[in-house]
Amino acid sequence: MSEVFDLATDLIRRRSVTPEDAGCLASIGERLGRVGFRIEHLRYGDVENLWATHGANNAPGQGPLLIFLGHTDVVPSGPEEAWQSPPFEPTVRNGRLYGRGAADMKGSVAAMVVALERFVSMHPDHPGRVGLLLTSDEEGPTNLDGVRRVADYFRSIGERIHWCVVGEPSAKEKLGDLIRVGRRGSLSATLTVRGVQGHVAYPEKALNPIHAFAPALAALAAERWDEGNADFPPTSFQVSNLNAGTGANNVIPGSLTALINFRYSTASTADDLRRRAEAILARHGLDYAIEWNLSGESFLTPPGGHLREVVVSVCRDLCGTEPEQSTGGGTSDGRFIAPLGAEVVELGPVNATIHKVDECVDVAELERLPDLYRAICERMLVM
Amino acid sequence: MSEVFDLATDLIRRRSVTPEDAGCLASIGERLGRVGFRIEHLRYGDVENLWATHGANNAPGQGPLLIFLGHTDVVPSGPEEAWQSPPFEPTVRNGRLYGRGAADMKGSVAAMVVALERFVSMHPDHPGRVGLLLTSDEEGPTNLDGVRRVADYFRSIGERIHWCVVGEPSAKEKLGDLIRVGRRGSLSATLTVRGVQGHVAYPEKALNPIHAFAPALAALAAERWDEGNADFPPTSFQVSNLNAGTGANNVIPGSLTALINFRYSTASTADDLRRRAEAILARHGLDYAIEWNLSGESFLTPPGGHLREVVVSVCRDLCGTEPEQSTGGGTSDGRFIAPLGAEVVELGPVNATIHKVDECVDVAELERLPDLYRAICERMLVM
Repeated sequence: MSEVFDLATDLIRRRSVTPEDAGCLASIGERLGRVGFRIEHLRYGDVENLWATHGANNAPGQGPLLIFLGHTDVVPSGPEEAWQSPPFEPTVRNGRLYGRGAADMKGSVAAMVVALERFVSMHPDHPGRVGLLLTSDEEGPTNLDGVRRVADYFRSIGERIHWCVVGEPSAKEKLGDLIRVGRRGSLSATLTVRGVQGHVAYPEKALNPIHAFAPALAALAAERWDEGNADFPPTSFQVSNLNAGTGANNVIPGSLTALINFRYSTASTADDLRRRAEAILARHGLDYAIEWNLSGESFLTPPGGHLREVVVSVCRDLCGTEPEQSTGGGTSDGRFIAPLGAEVVELGPVNATIHKVDECVDVAELERLPDLYRAICERMLVM
Repeated sequence: MSEVFDLATDLIRRRSVTPEDAGCLASIGERLGRVGFRIEHLRYGDVENLWATHGANNAPGQGPLLIFLGHTDVVPSGPEEAWQSPPFEPTVRNGRLYGRGAADMKGSVAAMVVALERFVSMHPDHPGRVGLLLTSDEEGPTNLDGVRRVADYFRSIGERIHWCVVGEPSAKEKLGDLIRVGRRGSLSATLTVRGVQGHVAYPEKALNPIHAFAPALAALAAERWDEGNADFPPTSFQVSNLNAGTGANNVIPGSLTALINFRYSTASTADDLRRRAEAILARHGLDYAIEWNLSGESFLTPPGGHLREVVVSVCRDLCGTEPEQSTGGGTSDGRFIAPLGAEVVELGPVNATIHKVDECVDVAELERLPDLYRAICERMLVM
């Protein structure tokens, strides 16, 4: 079979459930080192990260720098007997390659490696620099030691990234039908409203935090945080958990806890939302404590951005599609790279089976993916 | 010591934790039978109830009928080593009789028995009838098989009760300083608000029941249900428990559960409150289910009621107090007797130690209590 198929199946065989890497990054680093990439293994805690760069003047801060971003870790397979073929034994059926990570995102990672090998082989003296950043901590709960830490490292060495292509599976039905040009931010908080516990028969001696919070909750739920913009729907606010009470029906509880979450557009900032939410709480005279957690800032590569235009043109020319340019879905590691000043666009295979049993990628589309990624390199740096 | 002291200590020695009776009611029934009372043992489920009546024409429905109401069951002692003397070994220290049930309400029960014995001995041909109703299921969680069931029995046999003295410990600091002339009602409900579960990143595909409920909750908490009246504070509404969410911060919950409770005055009826609460829920377009539980209807013996006047006069003449006439506190078994058409007044010892370790009653006050109860019999039926 093809080079990309061989590499993808080699990676799928490795049981690299977060944060395990099972040798994926060592193997890729060795391979790219052989074709002239400078290789750095950045290990933080249990997490492996690989940073590979190529260019005539290959030093931090030199550019322009186009990177590909991906991860070799996968989510657990769940019960292996639920799969039609074992999740870590890549298997082809009806033109599809099955295995955990086939679509998310060992297929894309293999395509990036092959694309970069071919690009530097065809353009050994290309202008600027190309790079590949891979982590083994994208699917975990915290992502503390993956791309977030690498971005800090980049800041510390003065590295500057101009453009970033994320290989996350973006397509809906066929390769090239959807690219992501940004992501909403995610801002969470744990809110505690304090009252005074007491017996329901003597409410005058108690202060019910449920009653105290009710008008503030209604105001938060009714608030229009922004109108969104051309690329984003309006910011949404949700209370995901609300708990108060001891279980006894004759006790007024002493406190109430709410977990809240904003999915926010670039029409608002996390600081704005924090400030406005707390103003609503304060306006209702609540005695409260709130602990904020910004799990991902919003980012956008605006229309007219060079990378966005090029990725659209590559889809149009190589896939025959006019891709939808979306900011939907959850978030991605692109959120850590965008704040470095990079344009970030996501292009990868169909995502219909990710995180499910019988995850798969279409073999023909997998084999076209290196051409797409190489074409992006050429149009960004050479043409 | 005195008769009332001897009987009280005999009862305290019996470990009659709800619904156990440990022979209390058999012993009392035998004793009253000896002085001419007609005795009925009404056993429902695990619960013993004693119904003892005396009068020249002692048949159901004959009257006027004055009864005393009490219970022989007690709450658990908790760790016995926390007590200064064992909870089921009555002990006198510093003029107080210690033991579980000393104040709530084996002291009052003993006083009622002694008072009735003396009354029928001094007035063998008294007009009307006197009675004693005791249960072993007042302190339990449901009270299903105690006075509630006996009241149904009374209805079925055409029994008619005109006046009822409840022996619950009513006094604050000294015997006769407070009597209860009614109780608030208690109406509870479990409310379930249904939404549609979903991911917080896609709120448009979900319906958050927390957000849906918020304005209705604010309206319920702000509602002025009534203004109370001369004997009652305004009806109070409390949400005691509110729960929604799976614990995960990225899931919009599919439903919300609230436990609510009204403590209501005689200015409202349970039906009114139910109807008005549901109207608020309906007005906010909620998809909800609600299960109501009326655990006690409100009742009041209004100013000018014959029994109320007599009990006040007895406190004034025998204790030298001007008793506060209150409707405060939780509820009592009087709620099952009042709907039979009876005036209900509560008079008993100091309640400072009830349901606590080292429960006790003042011995001197215990020994005066039979005189108070007998005086009530005399002023209601003889004078």
